[in-house]
Amino acid sequence: MNSTTKISLCQFKVGSNKIDNINKAREYIINACNNGSNIVVLPECFICPYNTKIFKENAEKIFNPNDESCKAFKMLEEVSRINPNVYIFGGSIIEEDKDGLLYNTCLVLYGGKVEGIYRKNNLYKINILEHNFSEGDVLTPGNSPTIIKTKYGNIGIGICYDLRFQDLAKYYRVNNCSIILYPGSFNRITGPKHWLLLQQVRAIDNQLFVASCSAACSFNSDYESYGKSYIISPWGDIINETKLDKEEIISSEINFDQITKVRNNLPILKN
Amino acid sequence: MNSTTKISLCQFKVGSNKIDNINKAREYIINACNNGSNIVVLPECFICPYNTKIFKENAEKIFNPNDESCKAFKMLEEVSRINPNVYIFGGSIIEEDKDGLLYNTCLVLYGGKVEGIYRKNNLYKINILEHNFSEGDVLTPGNSPTIIKTKYGNIGIGICYDLRFQDLAKYYRVNNCSIILYPGSFNRITGPKHWLLLQQVRAIDNQLFVASCSAACSFNSDYESYGKSYIISPWGDIINETKLDKEEIISSEINFDQITKVRNNLPILKN
Repeated sequence: MNSTTKISLCQFKVGSNKIDNINKAREYIINACNNGSNIVVLPECFICPYNTKIFKENAEKIFNPNDESCKAFKMLEEVSRINPNVYIFGGSIIEEDKDGLLYNTCLVLYGGKVEGIYRKNNLYKINILEHNFSEGDVLTPGNSPTIIKTKYGNIGIGICYDLRFQDLAKYYRVNNCSIILYPGSFNRITGPKHWLLLQQVRAIDNQLFVASCSAACSFNSDYESYGKSYIISPWGDIINETKLDKEEIISSEINFDQITKVRNNLPILKN
Repeated sequence: MNSTTKISLCQFKVGSNKIDNINKAREYIINACNNGSNIVVLPECFICPYNTKIFKENAEKIFNPNDESCKAFKMLEEVSRINPNVYIFGGSIIEEDKDGLLYNTCLVLYGGKVEGIYRKNNLYKINILEHNFSEGDVLTPGNSPTIIKTKYGNIGIGICYDLRFQDLAKYYRVNNCSIILYPGSFNRITGPKHWLLLQQVRAIDNQLFVASCSAACSFNSDYESYGKSYIISPWGDIINETKLDKEEIISSEINFDQITKVRNNLPILKN
């Protein structure tokens, strides 16, 4: 296993046109690959605005890669073929299975091929005055964690709301992950309160790296994503972060020796 | 169950003289009771400086309440008799059992009697250049959580380093606690980084109140406690907090409806 890796988070605004979003994602991934990244991460639901009503029409039937719905999937495969040594974590798309069920799904590409699939396990539900949302109205939850075995150690995946579930993060730690990636799109109410805190404590509790990639905030859109993306150290420090509404790639070289150091300094996992 | 409770945290400096510390603790508890508190909390190890070398000489043989070592225990019983309707969480003392084993122990008094005992489950160990410490050199860990059933709902107890263990907090939530109390004495290296963050996320993850009570920081002493005490809402907000090195009582009325509200707003515990 390599002792360092360069990780890049692609934070951009997601608009209403799927083709435009995919073209933008392609451009961001290629730029991140060109800067020497080993791991590239996209935001949650980068193909369409985060709105359950339009999930069906934007869904991709990835069980049949030749289906014309698979535009994001095809783009991810294409950029992966061109950059075969980069692990591309495709944020998430809306996936439609053979039975017509929809999932919030992260496709991971490597060497031009699908290296792993993660379906969001915990579907977002919130009931507050300013903001009501229930993914479960249209989506089906995934039923298992996903670990990608890479040259840079095991990487666990959670999507957005999954960050609220300590047991998922613990599962990844117990299964020897060195990084947990959370594509996300927190909202502007819970985002400022919880998004960063939760990432820091998942990193501190499990003594591993945590990184998140959010869509950039589009003010006054239907869904104002809390657009902040972070790379967090096993000590809970912010290594890198984006601005709220800025479209940008942030990149950091992380060193896995830091995990060993923190675990020696504070041997909580041995208790 | 009452729908509100007034909780007071007594933050004071712990000096080298045990009798002085106990007298100070008595004074703080009485003042807190006099201000109408229902729950009063002391800091971890309020009887002597936080130094494993002097734990044995300061230990109390609480299995024999008449033993002359039981000075803090006696004081707690006495103030509890005078204030029988207040739940007094006696931070922690060093306890010596019949076999001569030592524990970091929280005594909970109510109605003049011991209502519960919690022995710190996870013993603090840290190996960093500026700060090396291992409670396990002299202490024995407790082996179970402790829940105090009160008029204000169930209250779980952790001591300091226990805060780092998500499963203990989860245990208390699963067993219907509405508050977790952490007497503590984090150090000035990990304190500024982790003490507050961990409390907030234990509250957010478990959707309950968290409160901590630390010794006030004595600068340039052997052990510079990171003296910050907090009351945290189920949403992760700071309801009240002390200053680093100030000796003070902070008190807040908390309303348990807030737990119901947060759990309805964000039903993560149903997933």
